[in-house]
Amino acid sequence: MGLKISLSLEEIYQPIQSFLPQVEERVLEILATPNELSSEVVRYFFKSKGKYLRPALVLFGASFGKNISENVISTAAALEIFHSATLIHDDIIDSAYLRRNLPTVNAKWNSQVAVLVGDYLHDKAIGAIFNTKNDRVIAGFLNTAGVVCDGEIMELKEKNNFNLKEETYFNIIERKTAALLATCLESGAVLADLPIEQILALKKFGLYFGMAFQILDDCLDFMGKENEFGKTLGADLQAGVLTLPLIRLIALLDESRKAEIFSRVKSGLNHAQLDDLVRLLEEHEALDYSIQRARDYTDRALLELSVFPESPIRSSLKALLYYVLQRNR
Amino acid sequence: MGLKISLSLEEIYQPIQSFLPQVEERVLEILATPNELSSEVVRYFFKSKGKYLRPALVLFGASFGKNISENVISTAAALEIFHSATLIHDDIIDSAYLRRNLPTVNAKWNSQVAVLVGDYLHDKAIGAIFNTKNDRVIAGFLNTAGVVCDGEIMELKEKNNFNLKEETYFNIIERKTAALLATCLESGAVLADLPIEQILALKKFGLYFGMAFQILDDCLDFMGKENEFGKTLGADLQAGVLTLPLIRLIALLDESRKAEIFSRVKSGLNHAQLDDLVRLLEEHEALDYSIQRARDYTDRALLELSVFPESPIRSSLKALLYYVLQRNR
Repeated sequence: MGLKISLSLEEIYQPIQSFLPQVEERVLEILATPNELSSEVVRYFFKSKGKYLRPALVLFGASFGKNISENVISTAAALEIFHSATLIHDDIIDSAYLRRNLPTVNAKWNSQVAVLVGDYLHDKAIGAIFNTKNDRVIAGFLNTAGVVCDGEIMELKEKNNFNLKEETYFNIIERKTAALLATCLESGAVLADLPIEQILALKKFGLYFGMAFQILDDCLDFMGKENEFGKTLGADLQAGVLTLPLIRLIALLDESRKAEIFSRVKSGLNHAQLDDLVRLLEEHEALDYSIQRARDYTDRALLELSVFPESPIRSSLKALLYYVLQRNR
Repeated sequence: MGLKISLSLEEIYQPIQSFLPQVEERVLEILATPNELSSEVVRYFFKSKGKYLRPALVLFGASFGKNISENVISTAAALEIFHSATLIHDDIIDSAYLRRNLPTVNAKWNSQVAVLVGDYLHDKAIGAIFNTKNDRVIAGFLNTAGVVCDGEIMELKEKNNFNLKEETYFNIIERKTAALLATCLESGAVLADLPIEQILALKKFGLYFGMAFQILDDCLDFMGKENEFGKTLGADLQAGVLTLPLIRLIALLDESRKAEIFSRVKSGLNHAQLDDLVRLLEEHEALDYSIQRARDYTDRALLELSVFPESPIRSSLKALLYYVLQRNR
């Protein structure tokens, strides 16, 4: 995939744009409750919209079929709710204070509220998926929920492991990120009754796209300026989470330099030390290397699209790959 | 229900005892995973068996039918796993350090691990319930999962509310405790294909039994000796959770004494102050009053059993009511 000016997400979402307001409404319908605290947290959390990537993928998957059913809208909403539940729990785990430039649920309320509201969202998402009455969608979703959780537990276990292997890293991100994106496309495709080879192609596309998406996300932790993100630069590393750029760098360093970086990271990096580390990553082309790995995945994702004839939906999925490689936030 | 020497749980469980080892095995089968950290936590948590009350209720419900199917065993296991997930998350919320006389998951590992392993158990429980392929059981369970969570969020919201009404308290415990016990009996009954009036009677029995169970549990927080429990006396109150005995006491006190107790509780009760409070509860018969409310519920539960002819199972459910009223741990 050569150089190309990437489209904005809004442009990419154009073919499914008209359905997104319905999904947003469905999210709030699914989460409606007389419980005041729950509904206060829900209103707060969903006020700031994320990228709505998971609903968009469900809609893209379904759009290869004849029409977008009510079940598709509900599934898109459910997957955004499920994703939100994991974000709320992640923010407890990372003791994060900001998400989308607003205080996290654990910061604005407390971690108790965050645990329970996360559980509430989780339950409601599963309930909505169950209401589709589509066994394949339900089973696929439940399996993926387990896989996502598994990936997060693996990540937690490998915290501060400076000997983390690339293979383990790829295994973790496949579980914690890519599996859910694959399930979004698969669910949409299943609900739209696509032929099995198209369902599988979309699922694989989602998986490879998800790998690239997470690798770039991890690279961005070392790139750009602080305030652009609504998150802190080097945050993963400060939390002990080793990602591809650092794994690559460590593989290239001799033992003494490795030990030096390890001890520095352990005692908490200040701004100057973080700048040093970023310079070292650049010197050893560890970010380039990582971006190249992401590109390998987008190449594989692109191949999966070849089972589909040209269409605006296919073009959007293609554009999504360029978007991921070029995104800077 | 007059005085009567209550049976031990083991004696009560006698008619379903032979199935409990299968349930224990199924719990571990459902939770089997190559993920080392997850399986370490699972082994640790399930090493110390609780009362296994929820599986027992599933088995009792099913035992009114012809035989105990594989689905009944799986559902019993799933409900124990679901309950365990809520306990693990509860212990984060309460910052509890001991459960069943052992360090909690958040104490032995940390709250991050507890959040994720709780999520893992939650997902696996739902997966196992889904595998029963019984729509009524699945829908009932998913609904109850939401209700339980809702009850816990309500409890959290009402923390330190010294004007908490009895009605709100009953509403909270119905949701956080009784609903799940009702679902256990209902699920067993549904899977055993009992006639609808028996299913509903068992569900109501479970609900009323659950109310009595939780009220007594809340009374026990002010009764007995510390080390008998593996939990701290007055723990609910210290955490800001107001329960029936205190709600009753507060209703009987004048404004100035109410304010006095409120300010004492807010600054944290020492042992002597806790003793004073317990004396005050006794003086105003607030514990007796609460136990009488529990007895009202066991009376209602008992009535529900009248649709069943005499049988060892019916006798066990009856004995369970006496057990709850007389239990001291």
